[in-house]
Amino acid sequence: MKLWQKKYNLNKKIEDYTVGNDFQIDHVILAYDCKASIAHAEMLNQINILTEDELQSLVNELNNIIELSKKGEFVIEKSDEDCHTAIEKYLTKKLGDTGKKIHTARSRNDQVLTALRLYYLDNLKLIKTKIIDLQKTLEIVSNENKGIEFPGYTHTRKAMVTSVDMWIGALKDSMDDNLLQLEALYKLLSQSPLGTAAGYGVPITINRDYTAQKMGFAKVQKNPIYAQHSRGKFEAALLSFLSLLMFDGNKYASDLILLSMPEFGFFNLPDEFLTGSSIMPQKKNPDVLELLRANYHVVTSAEFQIKSMMSNLISGYHRDFQFFKEPVVKSIEIVQNSLDIMILVFSNLKFDKEKCKEAITEEVLATEKVYKLVEQGMTFRDAYKKIAEGY
Amino acid sequence: MKLWQKKYNLNKKIEDYTVGNDFQIDHVILAYDCKASIAHAEMLNQINILTEDELQSLVNELNNIIELSKKGEFVIEKSDEDCHTAIEKYLTKKLGDTGKKIHTARSRNDQVLTALRLYYLDNLKLIKTKIIDLQKTLEIVSNENKGIEFPGYTHTRKAMVTSVDMWIGALKDSMDDNLLQLEALYKLLSQSPLGTAAGYGVPITINRDYTAQKMGFAKVQKNPIYAQHSRGKFEAALLSFLSLLMFDGNKYASDLILLSMPEFGFFNLPDEFLTGSSIMPQKKNPDVLELLRANYHVVTSAEFQIKSMMSNLISGYHRDFQFFKEPVVKSIEIVQNSLDIMILVFSNLKFDKEKCKEAITEEVLATEKVYKLVEQGMTFRDAYKKIAEGY
Amino acid sequence: MKLWQKKYNLNKKIEDYTVGNDFQIDHVILAYDCKASIAHAEMLNQINILTEDELQSLVNELNNIIELSKKGEFVIEKSDEDCHTAIEKYLTKKLGDTGKKIHTARSRNDQVLTALRLYYLDNLKLIKTKIIDLQKTLEIVSNENKGIEFPGYTHTRKAMVTSVDMWIGALKDSMDDNLLQLEALYKLLSQSPLGTAAGYGVPITINRDYTAQKMGFAKVQKNPIYAQHSRGKFEAALLSFLSLLMFDGNKYASDLILLSMPEFGFFNLPDEFLTGSSIMPQKKNPDVLELLRANYHVVTSAEFQIKSMMSNLISGYHRDFQFFKEPVVKSIEIVQNSLDIMILVFSNLKFDKEKCKEAITEEVLATEKVYKLVEQGMTFRDAYKKIAEGY
Amino acid sequence: MKLWQKKYNLNKKIEDYTVGNDFQIDHVILAYDCKASIAHAEMLNQINILTEDELQSLVNELNNIIELSKKGEFVIEKSDEDCHTAIEKYLTKKLGDTGKKIHTARSRNDQVLTALRLYYLDNLKLIKTKIIDLQKTLEIVSNENKGIEFPGYTHTRKAMVTSVDMWIGALKDSMDDNLLQLEALYKLLSQSPLGTAAGYGVPITINRDYTAQKMGFAKVQKNPIYAQHSRGKFEAALLSFLSLLMFDGNKYASDLILLSMPEFGFFNLPDEFLTGSSIMPQKKNPDVLELLRANYHVVTSAEFQIKSMMSNLISGYHRDFQFFKEPVVKSIEIVQNSLDIMILVFSNLKFDKEKCKEAITEEVLATEKVYKLVEQGMTFRDAYKKIAEGY
Repeated sequence: MKLWQKKYNLNKKIEDYTVGNDFQIDHVILAYDCKASIAHAEMLNQINILTEDELQSLVNELNNIIELSKKGEFVIEKSDEDCHTAIEKYLTKKLGDTGKKIHTARSRNDQVLTALRLYYLDNLKLIKTKIIDLQKTLEIVSNENKGIEFPGYTHTRKAMVTSVDMWIGALKDSMDDNLLQLEALYKLLSQSPLGTAAGYGVPITINRDYTAQKMGFAKVQKNPIYAQHSRGKFEAALLSFLSLLMFDGNKYASDLILLSMPEFGFFNLPDEFLTGSSIMPQKKNPDVLELLRANYHVVTSAEFQIKSMMSNLISGYHRDFQFFKEPVVKSIEIVQNSLDIMILVFSNLKFDKEKCKEAITEEVLATEKVYKLVEQGMTFRDAYKKIAEGY
Repeated sequence: MKLWQKKYNLNKKIEDYTVGNDFQIDHVILAYDCKASIAHAEMLNQINILTEDELQSLVNELNNIIELSKKGEFVIEKSDEDCHTAIEKYLTKKLGDTGKKIHTARSRNDQVLTALRLYYLDNLKLIKTKIIDLQKTLEIVSNENKGIEFPGYTHTRKAMVTSVDMWIGALKDSMDDNLLQLEALYKLLSQSPLGTAAGYGVPITINRDYTAQKMGFAKVQKNPIYAQHSRGKFEAALLSFLSLLMFDGNKYASDLILLSMPEFGFFNLPDEFLTGSSIMPQKKNPDVLELLRANYHVVTSAEFQIKSMMSNLISGYHRDFQFFKEPVVKSIEIVQNSLDIMILVFSNLKFDKEKCKEAITEEVLATEKVYKLVEQGMTFRDAYKKIAEGY
Repeated sequence: MKLWQKKYNLNKKIEDYTVGNDFQIDHVILAYDCKASIAHAEMLNQINILTEDELQSLVNELNNIIELSKKGEFVIEKSDEDCHTAIEKYLTKKLGDTGKKIHTARSRNDQVLTALRLYYLDNLKLIKTKIIDLQKTLEIVSNENKGIEFPGYTHTRKAMVTSVDMWIGALKDSMDDNLLQLEALYKLLSQSPLGTAAGYGVPITINRDYTAQKMGFAKVQKNPIYAQHSRGKFEAALLSFLSLLMFDGNKYASDLILLSMPEFGFFNLPDEFLTGSSIMPQKKNPDVLELLRANYHVVTSAEFQIKSMMSNLISGYHRDFQFFKEPVVKSIEIVQNSLDIMILVFSNLKFDKEKCKEAITEEVLATEKVYKLVEQGMTFRDAYKKIAEGY
Repeated sequence: MKLWQKKYNLNKKIEDYTVGNDFQIDHVILAYDCKASIAHAEMLNQINILTEDELQSLVNELNNIIELSKKGEFVIEKSDEDCHTAIEKYLTKKLGDTGKKIHTARSRNDQVLTALRLYYLDNLKLIKTKIIDLQKTLEIVSNENKGIEFPGYTHTRKAMVTSVDMWIGALKDSMDDNLLQLEALYKLLSQSPLGTAAGYGVPITINRDYTAQKMGFAKVQKNPIYAQHSRGKFEAALLSFLSLLMFDGNKYASDLILLSMPEFGFFNLPDEFLTGSSIMPQKKNPDVLELLRANYHVVTSAEFQIKSMMSNLISGYHRDFQFFKEPVVKSIEIVQNSLDIMILVFSNLKFDKEKCKEAITEEVLATEKVYKLVEQGMTFRDAYKKIAEGY
């Protein structure tokens, strides 16, 4: 049974092709949809669509669904299409006519938008916490390895001396900037679309400020067409942020993979972090770092999938937008898991003081020699040329 | 228990992050891996690694796995990592030491490569069949609507007269070219990597020609480094092909969505193909076409995910490659379902002769007027200018 | 002559391949590099590397270069590689040993980073101005067409009534959000990398706060490794912003192309905005809108290019980063031109009141009928079903 | 003066935005357009649009343009928009009414398509030659370094022994497959679109077989809608091929950058191939390899740009297609230059026998130890476990 059930039934093959996997993915937004529905019901009560009793019974049942959801016991049938339909069906089964009123003054479009945004905002908070945890870990690593120096590279060639402190500090600073961008993104997403309905509003007067405030949004996204326009656009902004956050992981995974090779040996991971080969008995492979590196591309291509998919279309909802959900949900999970892994990896990294020191071979100090001459009064370029003659 | 099990156990969080979802996806390649293992076992018998009895018992058990797989009863545990491990574990449990011999002269690397290629080749054959079925459908549609003309558009503006025949014929021709490219791709993929092991061969003499022929590959992919190099490269080539095949769907979905609007009404889909809205009772939406359109982007971004992920890495296997599997498997399913949908849609398309005719308004014939003048001896450019004055 | 000139000369073919087109593109950053060099020289004077006289002559010559640059008269030879080399060469030619001192305490790496960031910041300011201009235009359009209603679409099918006000307002609101994101981006980019040298600092004490403040940066980007790490990352953040800004253009171009078709005719562009065909004399094509639409993809793929290119590499500068410049410069130009075009297009858009009204056919009002019944006390879902029977 | 010049003039800002840089890029297709125009003129003579004399004078002038083009003396004004307009203008200026006839039975659309395809086909031939030259170089490198062994890597960790022969051979084999794919691509592109006009044919009878044969196309692309549909699709197929060809360069550049580090030192490039730093006098950087690596991403993002840009649009030409030209032309140049560079680099690569040998440390031979035990009758898995105990 669909929210839009017609006199006719949808062709079976068409149904299979269109239903997709919303009925599976939607479990991540189910509780958010219930919370939004509670706020919506309260507002409907305010404008006399729902009586006090109807409101109370709806709130109770919606809270029941949240509880069922936590226990993994709320079922979304494939034929329900999505969690929104399953919720209305459940409410109508339990409460009869009262259930049939819950969809007043909204459309599935703004309902999805609202639930997704609540889900995004909550998960951004969690990501923020994990970033801060990572920074604390980095702080500790930096303090525990004070004074350890090794060669920095440019063009994958030894360049000048660097240190654990500088190398770890760069990631910490990058995370500071990530946090700043996260704030801006959070502000962007914290706009309540509830009440924009199918993108053209509803023909009755509702109190959108109330629901927005109740759900914790910073403001109301007033313009209904903009609510639909921002679908995709907000997701792309979110994924762009997540992609650049993963870029930090990609870069440090690349460093870790290379510089923990026995050929360099600047640092090591514990054996318990390394995997073996089915044929080569000696192997200890940094799979975890390779997948951290690879996951950057998964998130980045999720961004581009949405950016390509949402283009060249006129205003207003298109079913294409339904495909925005999976790449975002997947990317959010990847980012959270990857931050956990980064914390774990940096917590367990052992620096090899000796190998680091040995690697600072004579040519790594060439620039310092130039500056010795500069201090003695030679122009920089002449000093550079003089030292360059030795190489 | 892993194929590479060490003295130590992998850290639990690391295991969760690295194991991914191979254990779920691998069901699509399970039977192919068994077939490849049978060919491999026969070869091991030839070179006296396996006795005749050992071979027979391995073949029996591998066939059992294929049967279990068909019934959905072969279990791949998360702790098994993948189907390859699950198979060796099963064989060793059933056959003891004989099972421990099956991995001789191969690595999980070439085993995965082989199973995936067999899976690709089989599915390309299926795609070929579906393309031909689509072409037959198009032929019928074209014949049934002979003589129906409507305006062709350029720049989304009426241009010149076209016909059902020409419009349908273009898709048919594009599918002819798709079939040609499919042949070239099939040839590229039809190379047996079995025996290249982890990318550097095995230190015993084996008969790669035998296994290649037995599995139906057109040739042996001799160079072990090339076998690893082609991982990702072949997948990207496959996805590029699938993406361009989906582009045909994207284009015709766009035509169908626009020109079946009541504002145009050149053709219609049956109600049973259209979905409704949760708020607007009049709506009949072409979701199926919108998702056909959107799926082009899913496949295209799968291609770019792999192309970005496989870059900037040195020769030899990297765990990053494991992430190639899911986007390819997903894309193959999308393409097959989309071809089925295209066949269904075109079979049920009804052209509206009257609306088509009405749409051929006077300006659509302007170019014909130019050519009337050309036939009377005027130069093309002068004729063009003369007619242009009227607009 | 190169900054790093060796005893040997670079192989000619290698030089051609590596030199790229920096010598052409760098004209956009030349003046910014001079401004940064002036700040740098002042700091070198403070720390006694340059005398007061040397400083003055350097400042004079750098100002001369800025003047030459404005007149298009400063030449960057291909053999110079880039503007940074050309500047040092010019200064050394004019001032001898004084010129040889200007590169003290910096590397070409931080010099490029600094000049580019100044260029980005200035252009973001310009983009901000243009966004505000566009919003003013939209305000006017909205006011001049108050009360005009036309059908809003979902799934490219008539949905509910909308208005010029709502449609224009959505773009205006989106631009408000763009401005907010621009602020966050500006803050991110407003960090001075000058003094981080090749990514590992310089072996003498310098005053980075001074130069940062002098150039107008909000703060110093302290960590030298982070300065290099942010190369690419900041560009990707910038391009992501520009891409989403262009998405607004893409969406409204799509609306404009469709709804100005004679088949809809909701609004029109003046003939002077439309182009013709070489063969069809009647044609008036909205090329300008099509290119506005297409330019979204140019900017988006520029983002993807950088995000793919910068991945899977270890910390520290790589020559690959040089390729970040062109896609960013190109995208900035595209965005500025596109905003100008949007202002021009919206300023000249004529709404056709009659056609808009005619298009509001009966079914567009179906939802309103549902709500009439809701007001009479029927549950929403029952009301929906009752009205749905009519379609 | 434009081919479609109207009574009114195009708004100046609109013109600037729409004209793009075709007038600059079109020099690469100018000669091809003239060749196609000669074939077209001959056909027009056959069907009595042109007299023998008119034909002769057109052929002469078109050959003149080809000569001027070779000398870089044929001017395409910005106001001409493109080479096609410039050619007609030139012919009309020189030949009067005869010039005004050359556009009979074609549109700028099929004219562009034809010239571009001739340009693609010619350049694919050149690429084929360069691939074969590279293979010859690889053959020589392989022969000159027979017997040199070094460690192969998996997961960026030493795996098993490999050799120059195997490593070079892998690239050679990959190029063999590239040649096969090139043949299939060539066949796809070798279809004459001339005569499809604006995508809906021309209203007079023409001889398309004649022009196709005359220009050297393998066949006629009959369906006019398909001709437009293939625009973008063929370019994407071409770019996908070029991208995968560049992937080979990306992979070997990555190997060369890493394994020529002094820390490995398996091989070296001559100093004349290496560049320096503006601050660090000791540096010898492999910029050429880094740009070879980076150029893969330029070509890949060109493919993505087109694939995203061409999507979600209805059948028939859109001005968006004009933007396909630059990324393809740029990619073709990159690929040709990159193949030249690969030939140069491999020709000058020096292997360090000693360093290679030293790197084959004990653990690289672990798998061989396993197989010693297998030869003695132990099962593979038991042998693996026994040897694994030592690590």
